[in-house]
Amino acid sequence: MSGARTFAIDATRLDGWLRELARFSDAPAPAVERVLYTPTDLAGRAFVRGLAESLGLAVRVDAVGNTFFRLEGREPALAAVATGSHLDAIPNAGRFDGTVGVLGGLAALEAIRGAGITPRRAIEVIAFTSEEPTRFGLGCVGSRLMSGAIAPEAVRALRDAAGRPFEEVRADAGFVGALEEVRLPEGHYHAFVELHVEQGPVLEREGVAIGVVTAIAAPASYVLEIEGEGGHAGAVLMPDRKDALCAAAEIILAVEDAARTSGSDDTVATVGVCRVFPGAINGIAARVHLELDLRDTSLAAREEAFAVMAAAIERIAAARRVRVSRRTINEDPPAQADAAIVAAVEASAAAHGLTSRRMPSRAYHDALFMARIAPMGMVFVPSARGVSHRPDEYTAPEDVARGAAVLAGTLLKLAEDGDG
Amino acid sequence: MSGARTFAIDATRLDGWLRELARFSDAPAPAVERVLYTPTDLAGRAFVRGLAESLGLAVRVDAVGNTFFRLEGREPALAAVATGSHLDAIPNAGRFDGTVGVLGGLAALEAIRGAGITPRRAIEVIAFTSEEPTRFGLGCVGSRLMSGAIAPEAVRALRDAAGRPFEEVRADAGFVGALEEVRLPEGHYHAFVELHVEQGPVLEREGVAIGVVTAIAAPASYVLEIEGEGGHAGAVLMPDRKDALCAAAEIILAVEDAARTSGSDDTVATVGVCRVFPGAINGIAARVHLELDLRDTSLAAREEAFAVMAAAIERIAAARRVRVSRRTINEDPPAQADAAIVAAVEASAAAHGLTSRRMPSRAYHDALFMARIAPMGMVFVPSARGVSHRPDEYTAPEDVARGAAVLAGTLLKLAEDGDG
Repeated sequence: MSGARTFAIDATRLDGWLRELARFSDAPAPAVERVLYTPTDLAGRAFVRGLAESLGLAVRVDAVGNTFFRLEGREPALAAVATGSHLDAIPNAGRFDGTVGVLGGLAALEAIRGAGITPRRAIEVIAFTSEEPTRFGLGCVGSRLMSGAIAPEAVRALRDAAGRPFEEVRADAGFVGALEEVRLPEGHYHAFVELHVEQGPVLEREGVAIGVVTAIAAPASYVLEIEGEGGHAGAVLMPDRKDALCAAAEIILAVEDAARTSGSDDTVATVGVCRVFPGAINGIAARVHLELDLRDTSLAAREEAFAVMAAAIERIAAARRVRVSRRTINEDPPAQADAAIVAAVEASAAAHGLTSRRMPSRAYHDALFMARIAPMGMVFVPSARGVSHRPDEYTAPEDVARGAAVLAGTLLKLAEDGDG
Repeated sequence: MSGARTFAIDATRLDGWLRELARFSDAPAPAVERVLYTPTDLAGRAFVRGLAESLGLAVRVDAVGNTFFRLEGREPALAAVATGSHLDAIPNAGRFDGTVGVLGGLAALEAIRGAGITPRRAIEVIAFTSEEPTRFGLGCVGSRLMSGAIAPEAVRALRDAAGRPFEEVRADAGFVGALEEVRLPEGHYHAFVELHVEQGPVLEREGVAIGVVTAIAAPASYVLEIEGEGGHAGAVLMPDRKDALCAAAEIILAVEDAARTSGSDDTVATVGVCRVFPGAINGIAARVHLELDLRDTSLAAREEAFAVMAAAIERIAAARRVRVSRRTINEDPPAQADAAIVAAVEASAAAHGLTSRRMPSRAYHDALFMARIAPMGMVFVPSARGVSHRPDEYTAPEDVARGAAVLAGTLLKLAEDGDG
């Protein structure tokens, strides 16, 4: 097959789906919050499932809640082409992160069917469970399990902030069966392509419609527990203190400094969680819990920045006579996009008359893990002012529709591939 | 009346009361947590009330929940002598802070009655509501209202961390009537004497049994709200950030530094509360809520340290392009103990054969506010290792009993005073 097909996606209709899904939220609009396995998460999933069924797609749900919407192909025995993203949203999030990849994927399948096409290979849209790490501190639980990047035992050991085990929460949400069943073998999918908002400012700034992802940055995250000594805020004089929050403050600034001065423009380090115990206005902090997110497009640069942070933390702990313990949540390598998929996305963009540019993904996505079992690619659409993980996250309806059209062309091209 | 009476307090029995009360706790032993108007707070109050009734004391409860246990005097029309402290406990607290003053007060009244004495003036033990600021961010709510240090409207405007108004929580706890009725006029009490654990290391270090408080340090507390800009922890590069938690970290360290370098050994400054929004591991902090406690025995020294902090906060906000807003919770002046009460405590200690020393109270107490409407004094007993506001807070049973005996002698002396 030569010359990419083009597709028209109804921008208003797809935007309506995104708005409808945003109503499933535990935060007041415009903020969106859909945390793993909450009633709101389950209600949002049910809405999307109903939508997919109304489009005539077959539905499968695995043990962890990953949900597969399938458009059957002419040769069902061949490995399917997959796309997809996630439906969960961190507290105070917007309505585009993740959802564009799931609902845009459904719109792409509808467009392919609407054009009277039955592709050679089946095409599946996957809604992955828990891309966001909000509840159990670990991101991409669904795609990690699917790709074998994490052992089921490690997932079973997770507990949420309320101390509830993953398995108990999963069972309460109605997802049964062994986590072992989630794993899919390499070759199960012919290709995986994820549509996502950029979450950075590049496409908008340059006036480019489509980002073609070449690699996904290497993410790592850690928990730091700082143990000092509590006491009465009035009675313990300054020289006698081992204030865990003052030590945490120095660590937060050391982390920032190490990222700023790493020599790599792409190093980003963030302490986004800081919990203080006992947390009383007149009590000196006895213990502080920090969560640290560290990324770079280069694994070596990330590892070097981490070594600088670790040394600083050790110095701070010694100087302040506090104990700091560290637990690794994840340390993942970067992933490279498949050259043939990159070419297919570029060709589809060109066929649709859209500008495109190659770029890395600094945020990570389920595609990072799907790359372990299938050739991987990603399609980015612009994020207004580069804003994401905030209520004012915004991508224009036309931009979302363009992304879905490019995705449809890409999926169809890959679905017509031979057995090779 | 000349020559102070002496009293024998059963140390084991009083310690048993303290242990019994510590079982009313929302934290696992040995930690104690009794937060204002919770079912546990109400159950603890009921236990103490039952104890007081079993000792034959009359009980009155005012609109905010301050509870008065009265031993009637020979001349009921004369102003009573009062003692007392608080029953509430911050998260992860111990079992002596506050409780020693209430249960020790009851033991003192029992000892006076047990000696067959009916004092000239009535003596009341007061269990003050919400000395700890845990729930509504403001300490000494009960004694502030009683002394007119705060207007009822200001209390009605308080909300807890869950956003519930003070009045709603109070009503749910079963305390009715207008807050205006809590106020007592100057002269209502002839004197107020509070028994309390030192919460500092001085008495233990010097081997002195009784601390005679000469003044209570001037406390102030503030809320700081830092507004930066949220965003995706992976996608927003370091130079583009306005991370509210990094700004908060600099502020926490500037506060510590201002206290350390104030030139006054008595300046203490503590950030004990730090809440991050959205509080997700992969989200840059958009907003941070800090609570700051600042004290000095000298009002001028405290005000100077505060000016240094305020200037530093302004510099940090400008350099990091974040907005910092500040709200004053309280800015209270110090209080001086009454010379006659200081003398009465010293005489009672001497009569009991106990060593004593004069000292300031660095922590503040309900006595700080009662000083506005009555001559005030305080009796301190040793705190092991100076530890307080922690589960390992400890005062030996004999030391508590000695304090209660000295208190009994002091109260009786004051209760025999003439009309002057």
